[in-house]
Amino acid sequence: MSLLVTGSIGIDDVKTPFGSVENVYGGSAVYFSFAAKLFTQVRFVGVAGEDFPADFRAFLESEGIDLAGLEIRRGSQTFRWSGQYEQPTSDAETVSVQLNVLAEAGPTIPPRFADSDCVFLAATHPALQQDLVRQLKSPRLIMADTRDLWIKTEHDALIKTLSMVHGAILNDAEARLLTDQNNLVLAGREMLKMGPQFVVIKKGEHGAMLVTADAVAVLPAYPTTEVIDPTGAGDSFAGGMMGYLDRQGEISMLTLKRALAHGMIIASYVIEDFSLRRLEKLARCDVEQRLAQYVEMMSF
Amino acid sequence: MSLLVTGSIGIDDVKTPFGSVENVYGGSAVYFSFAAKLFTQVRFVGVAGEDFPADFRAFLESEGIDLAGLEIRRGSQTFRWSGQYEQPTSDAETVSVQLNVLAEAGPTIPPRFADSDCVFLAATHPALQQDLVRQLKSPRLIMADTRDLWIKTEHDALIKTLSMVHGAILNDAEARLLTDQNNLVLAGREMLKMGPQFVVIKKGEHGAMLVTADAVAVLPAYPTTEVIDPTGAGDSFAGGMMGYLDRQGEISMLTLKRALAHGMIIASYVIEDFSLRRLEKLARCDVEQRLAQYVEMMSF
Repeated sequence: MSLLVTGSIGIDDVKTPFGSVENVYGGSAVYFSFAAKLFTQVRFVGVAGEDFPADFRAFLESEGIDLAGLEIRRGSQTFRWSGQYEQPTSDAETVSVQLNVLAEAGPTIPPRFADSDCVFLAATHPALQQDLVRQLKSPRLIMADTRDLWIKTEHDALIKTLSMVHGAILNDAEARLLTDQNNLVLAGREMLKMGPQFVVIKKGEHGAMLVTADAVAVLPAYPTTEVIDPTGAGDSFAGGMMGYLDRQGEISMLTLKRALAHGMIIASYVIEDFSLRRLEKLARCDVEQRLAQYVEMMSF
Repeated sequence: MSLLVTGSIGIDDVKTPFGSVENVYGGSAVYFSFAAKLFTQVRFVGVAGEDFPADFRAFLESEGIDLAGLEIRRGSQTFRWSGQYEQPTSDAETVSVQLNVLAEAGPTIPPRFADSDCVFLAATHPALQQDLVRQLKSPRLIMADTRDLWIKTEHDALIKTLSMVHGAILNDAEARLLTDQNNLVLAGREMLKMGPQFVVIKKGEHGAMLVTADAVAVLPAYPTTEVIDPTGAGDSFAGGMMGYLDRQGEISMLTLKRALAHGMIIASYVIEDFSLRRLEKLARCDVEQRLAQYVEMMSF
Protein backbone atom coordinates (compact mmCIF):
# COMPACT_ATOMS: atom_id res chain seq x y z
CA MET A 1 0.00 0.00 0.00
CA SER A 2 1.51 3.26 -1.14
CA LEU A 3 -0.05 6.07 -3.12
CA LEU A 4 1.98 8.61 -5.02
CA VAL A 5 0.51 11.81 -6.39
CA THR A 6 2.17 14.27 -8.68
CA GLY A 7 0.62 17.55 -9.73
CA SER A 8 0.44 21.20 -8.90
CA ILE A 9 0.95 22.95 -5.59
CA GLY A 10 0.28 26.65 -5.40
CA ILE A 11 -1.40 29.70 -4.01
CA ASP A 12 -4.93 30.65 -5.07
CA ASP A 13 -7.24 33.64 -5.03
CA VAL A 14 -10.85 32.53 -5.43
CA LYS A 15 -14.10 34.43 -5.75
CA THR A 16 -17.57 32.85 -5.76
CA PRO A 17 -21.07 34.30 -5.20
CA PHE A 18 -20.56 33.42 -1.52
CA GLY A 19 -17.35 35.31 -0.84
CA SER A 20 -13.73 35.44 -1.76
CA VAL A 21 -10.38 34.38 -0.37
CA GLU A 22 -6.82 35.41 -1.21
CA ASN A 23 -3.48 33.65 -0.86
CA VAL A 24 -5.00 30.31 0.13
CA TYR A 25 -3.40 26.88 -0.29
CA GLY A 26 -4.26 25.16 -3.53
CA GLY A 27 -3.08 22.96 -6.38
CA SER A 28 -4.35 19.67 -7.80
CA ALA A 29 -1.89 17.47 -5.91
CA VAL A 30 -2.69 19.24 -2.64
CA TYR A 31 -6.45 18.69 -2.89
CA PHE A 32 -5.82 15.11 -4.00
CA SER A 33 -3.53 14.49 -1.02
CA PHE A 34 -5.98 15.84 1.52
CA ALA A 35 -8.69 13.51 0.24
CA ALA A 36 -6.48 10.44 -0.16
CA LYS A 37 -4.87 10.80 3.29
CA LEU A 38 -8.19 9.78 4.85
CA PHE A 39 -7.49 6.28 3.56
CA THR A 40 -3.78 5.79 3.08
CA GLN A 41 -0.25 7.21 3.32
CA VAL A 42 0.27 9.79 0.59
CA ARG A 43 3.58 10.40 -1.16
CA PHE A 44 3.72 13.87 -2.62
CA VAL A 45 5.72 14.81 -5.72
CA GLY A 46 5.69 18.39 -6.96
CA VAL A 47 7.68 21.57 -7.38
CA ALA A 48 7.28 24.95 -5.68
CA GLY A 49 9.37 28.10 -5.87
CA GLU A 50 11.69 29.64 -3.32
CA ASP A 51 8.79 31.85 -2.18
CA PHE A 52 6.94 28.74 -1.00
CA PRO A 53 5.49 29.61 2.42
CA ALA A 54 7.03 27.71 5.34
CA ASP A 55 3.63 27.42 6.96
CA PHE A 56 2.24 25.66 3.84
CA ARG A 57 4.93 22.99 4.22
CA ALA A 58 4.31 22.70 7.94
CA PHE A 59 0.58 22.36 7.28
CA LEU A 60 1.06 19.49 4.81
CA GLU A 61 3.52 17.77 7.15
CA SER A 62 1.18 18.09 10.09
CA GLU A 63 -1.43 16.23 8.05
CA GLY A 64 0.95 13.31 7.61
CA ILE A 65 1.69 13.81 3.93
CA ASP A 66 5.12 12.52 2.94
CA LEU A 67 6.89 15.50 1.33
CA ALA A 68 10.08 13.74 0.24
CA GLY A 69 9.05 14.52 -3.34
CA LEU A 70 8.40 18.23 -2.79
CA GLU A 71 11.17 20.18 -4.46
CA ILE A 72 11.63 23.84 -3.49
CA ARG A 73 13.44 25.24 -6.51
CA ARG A 74 15.85 28.11 -5.95
CA GLY A 75 15.36 31.03 -8.30
CA SER A 76 11.82 29.99 -9.19
CA GLN A 77 8.43 31.19 -8.06
CA THR A 78 5.46 29.14 -6.88
CA PHE A 79 2.44 28.56 -9.14
CA ARG A 80 -0.35 31.10 -8.58
CA TRP A 81 -3.93 30.94 -9.81
CA SER A 82 -6.74 33.44 -9.47
CA GLY A 83 -10.21 32.36 -10.50
CA GLN A 84 -13.86 33.11 -10.09
CA TYR A 85 -17.17 31.31 -10.49
CA GLU A 86 -20.39 32.92 -11.66
CA GLN A 87 -22.25 30.14 -9.86
CA PRO A 88 -20.90 27.23 -7.79
CA THR A 89 -22.07 24.97 -10.62
CA SER A 90 -20.29 26.96 -13.35
CA ASP A 91 -16.85 26.26 -14.71
CA ALA A 92 -14.08 28.35 -13.17
CA GLU A 93 -13.13 31.49 -15.04
CA THR A 94 -9.40 32.10 -14.75
CA VAL A 95 -8.75 35.74 -13.84
CA SER A 96 -4.99 35.35 -13.90
CA VAL A 97 -2.49 32.52 -13.86
CA GLN A 98 1.24 32.57 -13.21
CA LEU A 99 2.57 29.13 -14.08
CA ASN A 100 6.02 30.09 -12.73
CA VAL A 101 7.82 26.90 -11.69
CA LEU A 102 5.18 24.73 -13.42
CA ALA A 103 6.44 26.02 -16.77
CA GLU A 104 9.94 24.73 -16.01
CA ALA A 105 11.30 21.18 -15.75
CA GLY A 106 9.02 18.74 -13.97
CA PRO A 107 9.62 17.14 -10.59
CA THR A 108 11.77 14.07 -9.98
CA ILE A 109 10.41 11.06 -8.17
CA PRO A 110 12.66 10.30 -5.16
CA PRO A 111 14.19 6.80 -5.26
CA ARG A 112 12.28 5.66 -2.20
CA PHE A 113 8.97 6.55 -3.94
CA ALA A 114 9.78 4.55 -7.09
CA ASP A 115 8.16 1.39 -5.69
CA SER A 116 4.75 3.07 -5.26
CA ASP A 117 1.77 0.76 -5.84
CA CYS A 118 -0.73 3.37 -6.92
CA VAL A 119 0.04 6.56 -8.78
CA PHE A 120 -2.05 9.57 -9.71
CA LEU A 121 -0.85 11.91 -12.45
CA ALA A 122 -2.78 15.13 -12.09
CA ALA A 123 -3.39 17.14 -15.26
CA THR A 124 -0.16 18.46 -16.73
CA HIS A 125 1.74 18.25 -20.02
CA PRO A 126 1.37 14.66 -21.31
CA ALA A 127 5.09 14.36 -22.00
CA LEU A 128 5.79 15.21 -18.38
CA GLN A 129 3.26 12.58 -17.28
CA GLN A 130 5.18 10.03 -19.39
CA ASP A 131 8.51 11.05 -17.82
CA LEU A 132 7.03 10.46 -14.41
CA VAL A 133 5.67 7.03 -15.35
CA ARG A 134 9.14 6.02 -16.58
CA GLN A 135 10.59 6.80 -13.16
CA LEU A 136 8.35 4.19 -11.49
CA LYS A 137 9.19 0.51 -11.00
CA SER A 138 5.96 -1.45 -11.51
CA PRO A 139 2.92 0.29 -10.13
CA ARG A 140 -0.21 -1.83 -10.12
CA LEU A 141 -2.46 1.17 -10.78
CA ILE A 142 -1.71 4.43 -12.59
CA MET A 143 -4.49 6.91 -13.16
CA ALA A 144 -4.06 10.07 -15.24
CA ASP A 145 -6.09 13.25 -15.42
CA THR A 146 -5.91 15.73 -18.28
CA ARG A 147 -7.59 18.88 -19.45
CA ASP A 148 -8.90 20.59 -22.59
CA LEU A 149 -5.62 22.48 -23.16
CA TRP A 150 -3.67 19.22 -23.62
CA ILE A 151 -6.39 17.63 -25.72
CA LYS A 152 -6.21 20.59 -28.09
CA THR A 153 -2.48 21.26 -28.13
CA GLU A 154 -0.81 17.92 -27.33
CA HIS A 155 -3.23 15.38 -28.74
CA ASP A 156 -0.68 12.78 -29.85
CA ALA A 157 1.34 13.02 -26.65
CA LEU A 158 -1.84 12.61 -24.65
CA ILE A 159 -2.78 9.46 -26.59
CA LYS A 160 0.68 8.13 -25.74
CA THR A 161 0.15 8.89 -22.03
CA LEU A 162 -3.23 7.13 -22.11
CA SER A 163 -1.54 4.02 -23.54
CA MET A 164 0.71 3.94 -20.45
CA VAL A 165 -1.94 4.11 -17.70
CA HIS A 166 -4.60 1.84 -16.22
CA GLY A 167 -7.23 4.49 -15.66
CA ALA A 168 -8.11 7.86 -17.16
CA ILE A 169 -10.14 10.59 -15.53
CA LEU A 170 -11.48 13.75 -17.15
CA ASN A 171 -14.66 15.79 -17.31
CA ASP A 172 -17.58 15.35 -19.70
CA ALA A 173 -16.69 18.25 -22.00
CA GLU A 174 -13.11 16.96 -22.23
CA ALA A 175 -14.26 13.40 -22.98
CA ARG A 176 -16.43 14.74 -25.79
CA LEU A 177 -13.61 16.91 -27.12
CA LEU A 178 -11.09 14.07 -27.08
CA THR A 179 -13.32 11.48 -28.76
CA ASP A 180 -15.72 13.60 -30.83
CA GLN A 181 -18.50 11.49 -29.30
CA ASN A 182 -21.47 13.26 -27.71
CA ASN A 183 -22.71 10.15 -25.93
CA LEU A 184 -20.60 9.73 -22.80
CA VAL A 185 -20.73 5.94 -22.76
CA LEU A 186 -19.45 5.86 -26.34
CA ALA A 187 -16.85 8.52 -25.48
CA GLY A 188 -15.67 6.34 -22.59
CA ARG A 189 -15.48 3.27 -24.83
CA GLU A 190 -13.55 5.24 -27.43
CA MET A 191 -11.04 6.13 -24.73
CA LEU A 192 -10.71 2.48 -23.66
CA LYS A 193 -9.34 1.82 -27.16
CA MET A 194 -6.50 4.23 -26.35
CA GLY A 195 -5.27 1.93 -23.60
CA PRO A 196 -6.83 2.44 -20.17
CA GLN A 197 -8.78 -0.39 -18.54
CA PHE A 198 -11.24 2.07 -17.08
CA VAL A 199 -12.36 5.63 -17.73
CA VAL A 200 -13.95 7.95 -15.21
CA ILE A 201 -15.92 10.88 -16.65
CA LYS A 202 -16.65 13.63 -14.15
CA LYS A 203 -19.94 15.49 -14.56
CA GLY A 204 -19.63 18.18 -11.87
CA GLU A 205 -22.85 18.61 -9.91
CA HIS A 206 -24.30 15.60 -11.78
CA GLY A 207 -21.83 13.01 -10.52
CA ALA A 208 -19.60 10.73 -12.55
CA MET A 209 -19.61 7.86 -15.02
CA LEU A 210 -17.37 4.81 -14.96
CA VAL A 211 -16.76 2.91 -18.18
CA THR A 212 -14.95 -0.42 -18.50
CA ALA A 213 -14.87 -2.98 -21.32
CA ASP A 214 -17.73 -4.91 -19.71
CA ALA A 215 -19.81 -2.40 -17.85
CA VAL A 216 -20.95 1.16 -17.32
CA ALA A 217 -21.99 2.80 -14.07
CA VAL A 218 -23.29 6.29 -13.44
CA LEU A 219 -23.38 7.62 -9.90
CA PRO A 220 -24.98 10.93 -8.94
CA ALA A 221 -23.23 13.53 -6.84
CA TYR A 222 -24.24 13.72 -3.20
CA PRO A 223 -26.76 16.60 -3.10
CA THR A 224 -25.27 18.99 -0.58
CA THR A 225 -26.93 22.38 -0.08
CA GLU A 226 -23.84 24.09 1.32
CA VAL A 227 -21.96 24.88 -1.85
CA ILE A 228 -19.43 27.66 -1.36
CA ASP A 229 -16.44 26.98 -3.62
CA PRO A 230 -16.09 24.16 -6.17
CA THR A 231 -12.30 24.56 -6.46
CA GLY A 232 -10.55 21.25 -5.99
CA ALA A 233 -13.70 19.12 -6.18
CA GLY A 234 -12.40 17.06 -9.10
CA ASP A 235 -8.97 16.50 -7.58
CA SER A 236 -10.47 15.58 -4.20
CA PHE A 237 -12.83 13.19 -5.97
CA ALA A 238 -9.81 11.53 -7.58
CA GLY A 239 -8.00 11.53 -4.23
CA GLY A 240 -10.88 9.80 -2.50
CA MET A 241 -11.10 7.27 -5.33
CA MET A 242 -7.38 6.46 -5.36
CA GLY A 243 -7.02 6.54 -1.57
CA TYR A 244 -9.79 3.98 -1.34
CA LEU A 245 -8.39 1.84 -4.17
CA ASP A 246 -4.91 1.79 -2.64
CA ARG A 247 -6.40 -0.21 0.26
CA GLN A 248 -8.18 -2.73 -1.96
CA GLY A 249 -6.65 -6.03 -3.03
CA GLU A 250 -8.07 -5.95 -6.51
CA ILE A 251 -9.44 -3.48 -9.01
CA SER A 252 -12.88 -4.76 -10.00
CA MET A 253 -16.13 -3.11 -11.07
CA LEU A 254 -17.28 -3.40 -7.46
CA THR A 255 -14.19 -1.78 -5.91
CA LEU A 256 -14.17 0.88 -8.62
CA LYS A 257 -17.80 1.80 -7.92
CA ARG A 258 -17.08 1.94 -4.19
CA ALA A 259 -14.03 4.10 -4.94
CA LEU A 260 -16.16 6.48 -7.03
CA ALA A 261 -18.69 6.70 -4.22
CA HIS A 262 -16.00 7.55 -1.65
CA GLY A 263 -14.58 10.18 -4.01
CA MET A 264 -18.03 11.64 -4.57
CA ILE A 265 -18.68 11.99 -0.86
CA ILE A 266 -15.35 13.70 -0.20
CA ALA A 267 -15.94 16.09 -3.10
CA SER A 268 -19.33 16.95 -1.61
CA TYR A 269 -17.54 18.12 1.54
CA VAL A 270 -14.73 20.01 -0.21
CA ILE A 271 -17.14 22.40 -1.89
CA GLU A 272 -18.73 23.37 1.42
CA ASP A 273 -15.97 25.88 2.17
CA PHE A 274 -13.09 27.73 0.51
CA SER A 275 -9.73 26.11 -0.17
CA LEU A 276 -8.92 23.17 2.12
CA ARG A 277 -10.93 24.50 5.06
CA ARG A 278 -13.57 21.77 5.04
CA LEU A 279 -11.14 19.02 4.05
CA GLU A 280 -8.76 19.73 6.91
CA LYS A 281 -11.57 19.21 9.42
CA LEU A 282 -12.87 16.11 7.68
CA ALA A 283 -12.65 12.74 9.43
CA ARG A 284 -13.11 9.28 8.02
CA CYS A 285 -16.28 8.87 10.12
CA ASP A 286 -17.82 11.93 8.41
CA VAL A 287 -17.23 10.23 5.08
CA GLU A 288 -18.76 6.96 6.26
CA GLN A 289 -21.79 8.74 7.67
CA ARG A 290 -22.57 10.65 4.48
CA LEU A 291 -21.81 7.56 2.41
CA ALA A 292 -24.51 5.68 4.33
CA GLN A 293 -27.00 8.46 3.47
CA TYR A 294 -25.86 8.31 -0.15
CA VAL A 295 -26.45 4.56 -0.34
CA GLU A 296 -29.85 4.98 1.31
CA MET A 297 -30.72 7.74 -1.18
CA MET A 298 -30.22 5.32 -4.07
CA SER A 299 -32.01 2.39 -2.43
CA PHE A 300 -35.55 1.66 -3.50
CA MET B 1 -56.85 3.01 -9.95
CA SER B 2 -57.37 5.48 -12.74
CA LEU B 3 -54.91 7.88 -14.32
CA LEU B 4 -55.98 10.91 -16.27
CA VAL B 5 -53.60 12.91 -18.45
CA THR B 6 -54.27 16.19 -20.11
CA GLY B 7 -51.86 17.89 -22.46
CA SER B 8 -50.98 18.29 -26.08
CA ILE B 9 -51.56 15.97 -29.00
CA GLY B 10 -50.12 16.90 -32.34
CA ILE B 11 -48.01 16.25 -35.38
CA ASP B 12 -44.24 16.73 -35.29
CA ASP B 13 -41.32 17.16 -37.67
CA VAL B 14 -38.06 16.32 -35.93
CA LYS B 15 -34.45 16.50 -37.03
CA THR B 16 -31.48 15.18 -35.03
CA PRO B 17 -27.88 14.35 -36.02
CA PHE B 18 -29.13 10.81 -36.66
CA GLY B 19 -31.88 11.56 -39.14
CA SER B 20 -35.20 13.29 -39.51
CA VAL B 21 -38.88 12.43 -39.59
CA GLU B 22 -41.93 14.34 -40.79
CA ASN B 23 -45.58 14.21 -39.83
CA VAL B 24 -45.06 11.84 -36.92
CA TYR B 25 -47.32 11.44 -33.88
CA GLY B 26 -46.40 13.64 -30.95
CA GLY B 27 -47.59 15.76 -28.06
CA SER B 28 -46.90 15.69 -24.33
CA ALA B 29 -50.08 13.79 -23.43
CA VAL B 30 -49.41 11.21 -26.12
CA TYR B 31 -45.89 10.40 -24.92
CA PHE B 32 -47.15 10.35 -21.35
CA SER B 33 -49.95 7.94 -22.25
CA PHE B 34 -47.67 5.52 -24.06
CA ALA B 35 -45.43 5.29 -21.00
CA ALA B 36 -48.20 5.13 -18.40
CA LYS B 37 -50.20 2.47 -20.27
CA LEU B 38 -47.49 -0.05 -19.41
CA PHE B 39 -48.77 0.12 -15.82
CA THR B 40 -52.39 1.24 -15.77
CA GLN B 41 -55.49 2.32 -17.73
CA VAL B 42 -54.95 5.80 -19.16
CA ARG B 43 -57.71 8.37 -19.59
CA PHE B 44 -56.81 10.88 -22.26
CA VAL B 45 -58.03 14.49 -22.27
CA GLY B 46 -56.98 16.81 -25.07
CA VAL B 47 -58.09 18.70 -28.15
CA ALA B 48 -57.18 18.18 -31.79
CA GLY B 49 -58.43 19.89 -34.96
CA GLU B 50 -60.68 18.59 -37.70
CA ASP B 51 -57.56 17.63 -39.66
CA PHE B 52 -56.69 15.08 -36.97
CA PRO B 53 -55.65 11.91 -38.80
CA ALA B 54 -58.02 8.99 -38.38
CA ASP B 55 -55.08 6.61 -38.19
CA PHE B 56 -53.67 8.55 -35.20
CA ARG B 57 -56.94 7.93 -33.32
CA ALA B 58 -56.98 4.29 -34.35
CA PHE B 59 -53.38 3.93 -33.20
CA LEU B 60 -54.11 5.35 -29.74
CA GLU B 61 -57.24 3.19 -29.41
CA SER B 62 -55.39 0.07 -30.44
CA GLU B 63 -52.99 0.72 -27.56
CA GLY B 64 -55.90 0.70 -25.11
CA ILE B 65 -55.90 4.42 -24.31
CA ASP B 66 -59.35 5.67 -23.31
CA LEU B 67 -60.08 8.53 -25.71
CA ALA B 68 -63.39 9.69 -24.21
CA GLY B 69 -61.68 12.98 -23.43
CA LEU B 70 -60.25 13.55 -26.91
CA GLU B 71 -62.20 16.38 -28.53
CA ILE B 72 -61.95 16.81 -32.29
CA ARG B 73 -62.86 20.45 -32.74
CA ARG B 74 -64.60 21.46 -35.98
CA GLY B 75 -63.10 24.49 -37.68
CA SER B 76 -59.80 24.11 -35.83
CA GLN B 77 -56.43 22.71 -36.81
CA THR B 78 -54.25 20.27 -34.89
CA PHE B 79 -51.14 21.44 -33.05
CA ARG B 80 -47.97 21.14 -35.12
CA TRP B 81 -44.37 21.39 -33.94
CA SER B 82 -41.15 21.28 -35.90
CA GLY B 83 -37.91 21.04 -33.97
CA GLN B 84 -34.29 20.08 -34.23
CA TYR B 85 -31.48 19.09 -31.92
CA GLU B 86 -27.83 19.97 -32.44
CA GLN B 87 -26.98 16.97 -30.27
CA PRO B 88 -29.27 14.41 -28.61
CA THR B 89 -28.24 15.97 -25.29
CA SER B 90 -29.05 19.54 -26.38
CA ASP B 91 -32.31 21.34 -25.77
CA ALA B 92 -34.72 21.27 -28.71
CA GLU B 93 -34.60 24.24 -31.02
CA THR B 94 -38.08 25.03 -32.27
CA VAL B 95 -37.99 25.57 -36.04
CA SER B 96 -41.70 26.35 -36.26
CA VAL B 97 -44.74 25.93 -34.10
CA GLN B 98 -48.42 26.23 -35.00
CA LEU B 99 -50.35 26.18 -31.73
CA ASN B 100 -53.65 26.06 -33.67
CA VAL B 101 -56.28 24.47 -31.43
CA LEU B 102 -53.99 24.72 -28.38
CA ALA B 103 -54.37 28.51 -28.51
CA GLU B 104 -58.15 28.17 -28.17
CA ALA B 105 -60.31 27.06 -25.24
CA GLY B 106 -58.97 24.08 -23.32
CA PRO B 107 -60.46 20.61 -23.22
CA THR B 108 -63.32 19.52 -20.98
CA ILE B 109 -63.00 16.55 -18.69
CA PRO B 110 -65.80 14.05 -19.48
CA PRO B 111 -68.06 13.36 -16.45
CA ARG B 112 -67.00 9.73 -16.26
CA PHE B 113 -63.35 10.84 -15.90
CA ALA B 114 -64.10 13.25 -13.02
CA ASP B 115 -63.47 10.54 -10.41
CA SER B 116 -59.88 9.92 -11.57
CA ASP B 117 -57.47 9.00 -8.74
CA CYS B 118 -54.29 10.29 -10.33
CA VAL B 119 -53.99 13.23 -12.67
CA PHE B 120 -51.14 14.61 -14.75
CA LEU B 121 -51.34 18.16 -16.04
CA ALA B 122 -48.78 18.47 -18.83
CA ALA B 123 -47.24 21.89 -19.38
CA THR B 124 -49.81 24.42 -20.56
CA HIS B 125 -51.17 27.80 -19.43
CA PRO B 126 -51.42 27.68 -15.61
CA ALA B 127 -54.98 29.08 -15.67
CA LEU B 128 -56.01 26.21 -17.93
CA GLN B 129 -54.36 23.76 -15.52
CA GLN B 130 -56.46 25.26 -12.71
CA ASP B 131 -59.67 24.94 -14.75
CA LEU B 132 -58.93 21.28 -15.26
CA VAL B 133 -58.26 20.69 -11.55
CA ARG B 134 -61.63 22.27 -10.72
CA GLN B 135 -63.38 19.72 -12.95
CA LEU B 136 -62.09 16.83 -10.84
CA LYS B 137 -63.82 15.34 -7.78
CA SER B 138 -61.11 14.43 -5.29
CA PRO B 139 -58.01 13.04 -6.91
CA ARG B 140 -55.49 11.59 -4.46
CA LEU B 141 -52.53 12.69 -6.61
CA ILE B 142 -52.22 15.60 -9.03
CA MET B 143 -48.89 16.31 -10.63
CA ALA B 144 -48.25 19.37 -12.81
CA ASP B 145 -45.53 20.12 -15.32
CA THR B 146 -44.68 23.60 -16.55
CA ARG B 147 -42.14 25.34 -18.74
CA ASP B 148 -40.00 28.48 -18.91
CA LEU B 149 -42.62 30.37 -20.95
CA TRP B 150 -45.18 30.16 -18.10
CA ILE B 151 -42.60 30.93 -15.44
CA LYS B 152 -41.71 34.12 -17.31
CA THR B 153 -45.14 35.25 -18.48
CA GLU B 154 -47.63 33.79 -15.99
CA HIS B 155 -45.68 33.65 -12.76
CA ASP B 156 -48.56 34.39 -10.37
CA ALA B 157 -50.96 32.03 -12.10
CA LEU B 158 -48.30 29.32 -11.98
CA ILE B 159 -47.83 29.83 -8.23
CA LYS B 160 -51.59 29.40 -7.87
CA THR B 161 -51.47 26.15 -9.87
CA LEU B 162 -48.64 24.86 -7.70
CA SER B 163 -50.76 25.52 -4.59
CA MET B 164 -53.42 23.17 -6.01
CA VAL B 165 -51.25 20.11 -6.79
CA HIS B 166 -49.46 17.38 -4.84
CA GLY B 167 -46.42 17.16 -7.06
CA ALA B 168 -44.55 19.46 -9.43
CA ILE B 169 -42.24 18.41 -12.22
CA LEU B 170 -39.95 20.64 -14.29
CA ASN B 171 -36.41 20.72 -15.58
CA ASP B 172 -33.33 22.10 -13.82
CA ALA B 173 -33.15 25.37 -15.77
CA GLU B 174 -36.85 25.97 -15.06
CA ALA B 175 -36.45 25.21 -11.35
CA ARG B 176 -33.61 27.74 -11.17
CA LEU B 177 -35.61 30.31 -13.11
CA LEU B 178 -38.69 29.92 -10.94
CA THR B 179 -36.88 30.08 -7.59
CA ASP B 180 -33.77 32.12 -8.36
CA GLN B 181 -31.82 29.38 -6.56
CA ASN B 182 -28.81 27.84 -8.30
CA ASN B 183 -28.63 24.89 -5.92
CA LEU B 184 -31.24 22.39 -7.06
CA VAL B 185 -31.99 21.05 -3.58
CA LEU B 186 -32.68 24.59 -2.37
CA ALA B 187 -34.70 25.28 -5.53
CA GLY B 188 -36.80 22.18 -4.82
CA ARG B 189 -37.33 23.25 -1.20
CA GLU B 190 -38.33 26.73 -2.34
CA MET B 191 -40.96 25.13 -4.55
CA LEU B 192 -42.29 23.02 -1.68
CA LYS B 193 -43.20 26.31 0.02
CA MET B 194 -45.50 27.01 -2.94
CA GLY B 195 -47.65 24.03 -2.05
CA PRO B 196 -46.58 20.69 -3.54
CA GLN B 197 -45.59 17.81 -1.26
CA PHE B 198 -42.89 16.73 -3.66
CA VAL B 199 -40.91 18.26 -6.49
CA VAL B 200 -39.23 16.37 -9.32
CA ILE B 201 -36.43 18.20 -11.12
CA LYS B 202 -35.51 16.65 -14.47
CA LYS B 203 -31.84 16.90 -15.49
CA GLY B 204 -31.96 15.42 -19.00
CA GLU B 205 -29.06 13.03 -19.62
CA HIS B 206 -28.07 13.40 -15.95
CA GLY B 207 -31.25 11.96 -14.44
CA ALA B 208 -33.58 13.57 -11.94
CA MET B 209 -33.85 14.86 -8.40
CA LEU B 210 -36.72 14.30 -5.98
CA VAL B 211 -37.24 16.76 -3.14
CA THR B 212 -39.70 16.36 -0.27
CA ALA B 213 -39.90 18.09 3.10
CA ASP B 214 -37.86 15.32 4.75
CA ALA B 215 -35.59 13.99 2.06
CA VAL B 216 -33.75 14.43 -1.19
CA ALA B 217 -32.88 11.76 -3.75
CA VAL B 218 -30.92 12.05 -6.97
CA LEU B 219 -31.09 9.24 -9.48
CA PRO B 220 -28.93 9.09 -12.61
CA ALA B 221 -30.36 8.45 -16.06
CA TYR B 222 -29.91 4.93 -17.42
CA PRO B 223 -26.85 5.24 -19.70
CA THR B 224 -28.12 4.07 -23.06
CA THR B 225 -25.83 4.35 -26.08
CA GLU B 226 -28.62 4.35 -28.67
CA VAL B 227 -29.73 7.95 -28.50
CA ILE B 228 -31.59 9.00 -31.64
CA ASP B 229 -34.26 11.54 -30.64
CA PRO B 230 -34.84 13.00 -27.16
CA THR B 231 -38.35 14.28 -28.03
CA GLY B 232 -40.87 13.14 -25.45
CA ALA B 233 -38.31 11.88 -22.94
CA GLY B 234 -39.57 14.17 -20.16
CA ASP B 235 -43.24 13.37 -20.77
CA SER B 236 -42.54 9.64 -20.95
CA PHE B 237 -40.56 9.91 -17.74
CA ALA B 238 -43.59 11.53 -16.09
CA GLY B 239 -45.85 8.89 -17.63
CA GLY B 240 -43.76 6.06 -16.24
CA MET B 241 -43.69 7.75 -12.82
CA MET B 242 -47.43 8.37 -12.66
CA GLY B 243 -48.37 5.03 -14.21
CA TYR B 244 -46.33 3.30 -11.53
CA LEU B 245 -47.72 5.51 -8.72
CA ASP B 246 -51.32 4.89 -9.80
CA ARG B 247 -50.80 1.23 -8.83
CA GLN B 248 -49.32 2.02 -5.42
CA GLY B 249 -51.37 2.24 -2.24
CA GLU B 250 -49.46 5.12 -0.80
CA ILE B 251 -47.18 7.91 -1.90
CA SER B 252 -44.03 7.62 0.19
CA MET B 253 -40.35 8.39 -0.39
CA LEU B 254 -39.90 4.73 -1.30
CA THR B 255 -42.73 4.56 -3.84
CA LEU B 256 -41.71 7.95 -5.27
CA LYS B 257 -38.12 6.76 -5.79
CA ARG B 258 -39.37 3.57 -7.44
CA ALA B 259 -41.66 5.68 -9.61
CA LEU B 260 -38.75 7.89 -10.66
CA ALA B 261 -36.71 4.81 -11.52
CA HIS B 262 -39.48 3.37 -13.67
CA GLY B 263 -39.88 6.72 -15.43
CA MET B 264 -36.14 6.93 -16.00
CA ILE B 265 -36.02 3.49 -17.61
CA ILE B 266 -38.93 4.23 -19.94
CA ALA B 267 -37.36 7.55 -20.95
CA SER B 268 -34.14 5.69 -21.75
CA TYR B 269 -36.07 3.61 -24.29
CA VAL B 270 -38.06 6.48 -25.81
CA ILE B 271 -34.93 8.27 -26.99
CA GLU B 272 -33.70 5.19 -28.85
CA ASP B 273 -35.88 5.97 -31.87
CA PHE B 274 -37.94 8.78 -33.40
CA SER B 275 -41.44 9.64 -32.20
CA LEU B 276 -43.26 6.72 -30.49
CA ARG B 277 -41.49 4.01 -32.49
CA ARG B 278 -39.59 2.52 -29.56
CA LEU B 279 -42.41 3.08 -27.06
CA GLU B 280 -44.98 1.25 -29.15
CA LYS B 281 -42.80 -1.86 -29.17
CA LEU B 282 -41.98 -1.60 -25.46
CA ALA B 283 -43.26 -4.28 -23.08
CA ARG B 284 -43.39 -4.25 -19.32
CA CYS B 285 -40.78 -7.02 -19.21
CA ASP B 286 -38.31 -4.81 -21.15
CA VAL B 287 -38.75 -2.19 -18.44
CA GLU B 288 -38.22 -4.70 -15.64
CA GLN B 289 -35.13 -6.11 -17.32
CA ARG B 290 -33.44 -2.73 -17.76
CA LEU B 291 -34.55 -1.69 -14.28
CA ALA B 292 -32.70 -4.67 -12.84
CA GLN B 293 -29.54 -3.55 -14.66
CA TYR B 294 -30.09 -0.03 -13.36
CA VAL B 295 -30.36 -1.23 -9.76
CA GLU B 296 -27.25 -3.38 -10.23
CA MET B 297 -25.39 -0.38 -11.69
CA MET B 298 -25.98 1.57 -8.47
CA SER B 299 -25.18 -1.32 -6.13
CA PHE B 300 -21.78 -1.42 -4.52
